[in-house]
Amino acid sequence: PPKDRTRNWGWLLSGTIFLNVVILGVALVSASTFNSAVISSADLQVFLIILLLLTTLWMLYYQVYTARADHAVLFKDGHAGPVWLRAGLALFGLLSLIMDIFKIANYAGYLHCDSAVKVAFPVVQAVFLFVQTYFMWFHAKDCVQLQRNITRCGLMLTLATNLILWMTAVTEESVHQTDIPDEYDDHNVTKVYSRRAFIARASYGEDDCKCSYSACSIFKEAYYYLYPFNIEYSLFASAMSYVMWKNVGRLVDEPAHHKIRFHIRDVCLGPVLGVVMAVAGLATFVVYEVDLEKEDSGAKKDRAVMMHFVMNLVIVSLMSVSTAVGCAVFRLDHRDLLSGKNPTRSLDVGLLVAASVGQFVISYFTIVAVVATGAQGYLNGLNLAWAFMTIVQLGLQNLFIIEGLHREPHHEPPPITVFSNPYVIQGLGELGSLEDNESENKPSPEPPSHGEHGHAAAASPPPAHPEPEHRHKLTWKRRVLKEVCAFLLMGNIILWIMPAFGARPQFDHGTETEFYKFTMWAAVVNIGLPFGIFYRMHSVASLFEVYLTS
Amino acid sequence: PPKDRTRNWGWLLSGTIFLNVVILGVALVSASTFNSAVISSADLQVFLIILLLLTTLWMLYYQVYTARADHAVLFKDGHAGPVWLRAGLALFGLLSLIMDIFKIANYAGYLHCDSAVKVAFPVVQAVFLFVQTYFMWFHAKDCVQLQRNITRCGLMLTLATNLILWMTAVTEESVHQTDIPDEYDDHNVTKVYSRRAFIARASYGEDDCKCSYSACSIFKEAYYYLYPFNIEYSLFASAMSYVMWKNVGRLVDEPAHHKIRFHIRDVCLGPVLGVVMAVAGLATFVVYEVDLEKEDSGAKKDRAVMMHFVMNLVIVSLMSVSTAVGCAVFRLDHRDLLSGKNPTRSLDVGLLVAASVGQFVISYFTIVAVVATGAQGYLNGLNLAWAFMTIVQLGLQNLFIIEGLHREPHHEPPPITVFSNPYVIQGLGELGSLEDNESENKPSPEPPSHGEHGHAAAASPPPAHPEPEHRHKLTWKRRVLKEVCAFLLMGNIILWIMPAFGARPQFDHGTETEFYKFTMWAAVVNIGLPFGIFYRMHSVASLFEVYLTS
Repeated sequence: PPKDRTRNWGWLLSGTIFLNVVILGVALVSASTFNSAVISSADLQVFLIILLLLTTLWMLYYQVYTARADHAVLFKDGHAGPVWLRAGLALFGLLSLIMDIFKIANYAGYLHCDSAVKVAFPVVQAVFLFVQTYFMWFHAKDCVQLQRNITRCGLMLTLATNLILWMTAVTEESVHQTDIPDEYDDHNVTKVYSRRAFIARASYGEDDCKCSYSACSIFKEAYYYLYPFNIEYSLFASAMSYVMWKNVGRLVDEPAHHKIRFHIRDVCLGPVLGVVMAVAGLATFVVYEVDLEKEDSGAKKDRAVMMHFVMNLVIVSLMSVSTAVGCAVFRLDHRDLLSGKNPTRSLDVGLLVAASVGQFVISYFTIVAVVATGAQGYLNGLNLAWAFMTIVQLGLQNLFIIEGLHREPHHEPPPITVFSNPYVIQGLGELGSLEDNESENKPSPEPPSHGEHGHAAAASPPPAHPEPEHRHKLTWKRRVLKEVCAFLLMGNIILWIMPAFGARPQFDHGTETEFYKFTMWAAVVNIGLPFGIFYRMHSVASLFEVYLTS
Repeated sequence: PPKDRTRNWGWLLSGTIFLNVVILGVALVSASTFNSAVISSADLQVFLIILLLLTTLWMLYYQVYTARADHAVLFKDGHAGPVWLRAGLALFGLLSLIMDIFKIANYAGYLHCDSAVKVAFPVVQAVFLFVQTYFMWFHAKDCVQLQRNITRCGLMLTLATNLILWMTAVTEESVHQTDIPDEYDDHNVTKVYSRRAFIARASYGEDDCKCSYSACSIFKEAYYYLYPFNIEYSLFASAMSYVMWKNVGRLVDEPAHHKIRFHIRDVCLGPVLGVVMAVAGLATFVVYEVDLEKEDSGAKKDRAVMMHFVMNLVIVSLMSVSTAVGCAVFRLDHRDLLSGKNPTRSLDVGLLVAASVGQFVISYFTIVAVVATGAQGYLNGLNLAWAFMTIVQLGLQNLFIIEGLHREPHHEPPPITVFSNPYVIQGLGELGSLEDNESENKPSPEPPSHGEHGHAAAASPPPAHPEPEHRHKLTWKRRVLKEVCAFLLMGNIILWIMPAFGARPQFDHGTETEFYKFTMWAAVVNIGLPFGIFYRMHSVASLFEVYLTS
């Protein structure tokens, strides 16, 4: 009992700290956005520096004392901190580090006329990035047992810091993109446009303060390409610190992660089509980026945007069709559902659905804007179709992945070679189930159905005869599922690459920008898109898991 | 297994419907706010009418068919839909109905020059309000067993509809309060002010369209007083439909709710002080409202506002002190924690913390604004102190309530009268535990500690000797806890009454309004305050439960 009580206090205390730090952060960020005269961005950065230093100190303390003590970390959660998440964190951390170095170099040129805090902040952030990436790489799987309350509070502080950093970055970018120079007419709202606006803002309106050396403008240009990675980094670190917080004090019951072999040779159609689609997507993406870079006439740009829209529409439609096939197979498939609680799986599903909201919001905003303005022109029509198909694809894919994650993994049926007596073959079903009983985590024929034995009679009754014929069907279904998974995996990779490497078709034509005004639309895209990118990466990992278990 | 699978599909399908309807609603509300030229409020209302009709039809279907079928509702969840929630829903529903009648009467006067949808919407909403209040009053405790997937989808549709209605109301009010007439100078930003702005807007700028009869202005004035209740109503209905959704298909294991008697005579200091405080608060609140109504000179208004601030500061400070005492007693109290999952309790705690975020945000925004502008004048100083103490009080009260809800209820110790033999008294402890075993839900001496037997050695070791002396101490502790609960209960009631009946000190002096600009501040207050009001009502109910179990 005293242990339980301590856990409760630790949860409540860390939750209170989290709530207070985050809400104070929200208030400060809002204040510096809406009243930059009184609370300047330097004031906000002082607050951030304090937060970053506190979090860094705690992480160092954890690594030097807590993690090294005996009995501190007895268990590792095999599901937490998977390699794709840690690799992504390291990659985005590296790119954020480069961004910070550019920032330091740039603001050093303004030291004679601007606050020194603007240099101090990226320096502190660089140290923080380094320490946090190291910390999360090596300790993401820890189930801490010692000093649990301090660890809980520290992890919640880490989570709060990352969320505030994310919020600051998103707000800053939305504000940067807001000040549109007047000389451009509304029709030409292109990507180059907002990039130029961004650079104009970062140089303090060009008159008040001059950079003391000439390389400044190059540094500024680099921001534009690097800040999305910094936003991603904060999201990744937030997810990982939340999982670590959930794992504090947890005793993992299955230390041996069930090993499932990965055969790529089982399938061929899915991966081949997927790779073809990804390569085609990559090719058009490169052409699109190059064409938009050139700052040529409107007609050529429109053609590039159209090509990008068509390609995306095709990709999303093909993925929708294959996901629908996969969902139908799941409906036919009578595998047992996984029973029992699994916090990591619940978190996986929660993160998947929450991250998909970002893309949902962007698509619905597009649909409303295009429909309301009458969808004139082929670009608007394509945009509308793309947004609609994206919604369909996201919904189906969420269904497919969640269904897949909740199924018992398939077990190789014992090879039927020995018997020739027809009477024995009759009994094969029972034998199979007998042999199954020896395997490690058998699917129980009647899993505890969570107190649902009530009167809800069978919308889909279980198959009457689990015969050899049925076993053959299963293999057919498994193959379709694996093909679908492989195809979707490649589709999600290409849909991740495009926005992550700078495609912003949302700003390439003016319908939404004119409809919602620039500020509102920039805010929606800047908040929604990083979640969308996170969603694609997360889907890839989840689809890989579904591939392995089906 | 097929039943389990159906549940999963039902969840996913209803979740998908919810997500899509809500996000479409967000997009439409944003569009009609940011671009009212293309998407007028009439367009939005057509969408709302469709949603309301669908939801109403489903609720009627449920009441006529599903709820009447045999075996449809075998169990009732005793914790769901408590009487305070249903009574609140009925009260707010009634007031919303009156608001709708006023709206119908008002817009009927504009029929010759405005869309008929503006009359149709309140008519449909009135029908919806009636049906939904009836539905929730009688079916809030249902654990539906028949047609579970349809019921899940219907409940998620209900939740989505209520959330969109809430969003629309909040946005409308923020927009109404945005258009401030220019003739007022910035110093006089008072409540009367925003009320006048609201009425000005509701009459279409006075020139375009004239009401065909003279009573219109009275109807419009009534909006101002009634719309907060409508916002509350939507929040209440959302919470209840979410609980119903969670309960679909659930088999409640404890049908007999453990009856605990309510003795008010156990305590005296807490309730008496609480009532005195509530009456004092009520008196100053009435004086404040009357003084602000008068539209007199600035000095008198400032005095009324100051009085309101002082009273609130005193209430919140007293509550903080008593909550701190209560938390300290909980730390000393070594009662067992409740083990086992209880979805209603988890939801209670979640709603409590989530609702408190609204007040947290308002307070932090106030603190940032006042500190940044230097906190000049006694009004600003008082406002700052009030905001700070509110944060302290909210944090402590959340701790106290969550701790209290997770404790095993106390059991009356068997009266010690029969034995006089000293050897027998030695054995009393064991006898007590023997007798306890006969009671219905005994506190297990070693509850399953959720796999936490690890090496986290005892921050607070259990008491070594559970002697009669200790039993006496428990009684002393229980009394303190009950006094604290009773006092906090009265405090929360008065803190509920003030904002629910129209106190808006946030707009009574200009610091925040000038700092954040009117739009931003109105949005923060209009979103945060209904949650704050909900929080106070919810706290009263939870404190009553804590009172009973301690």
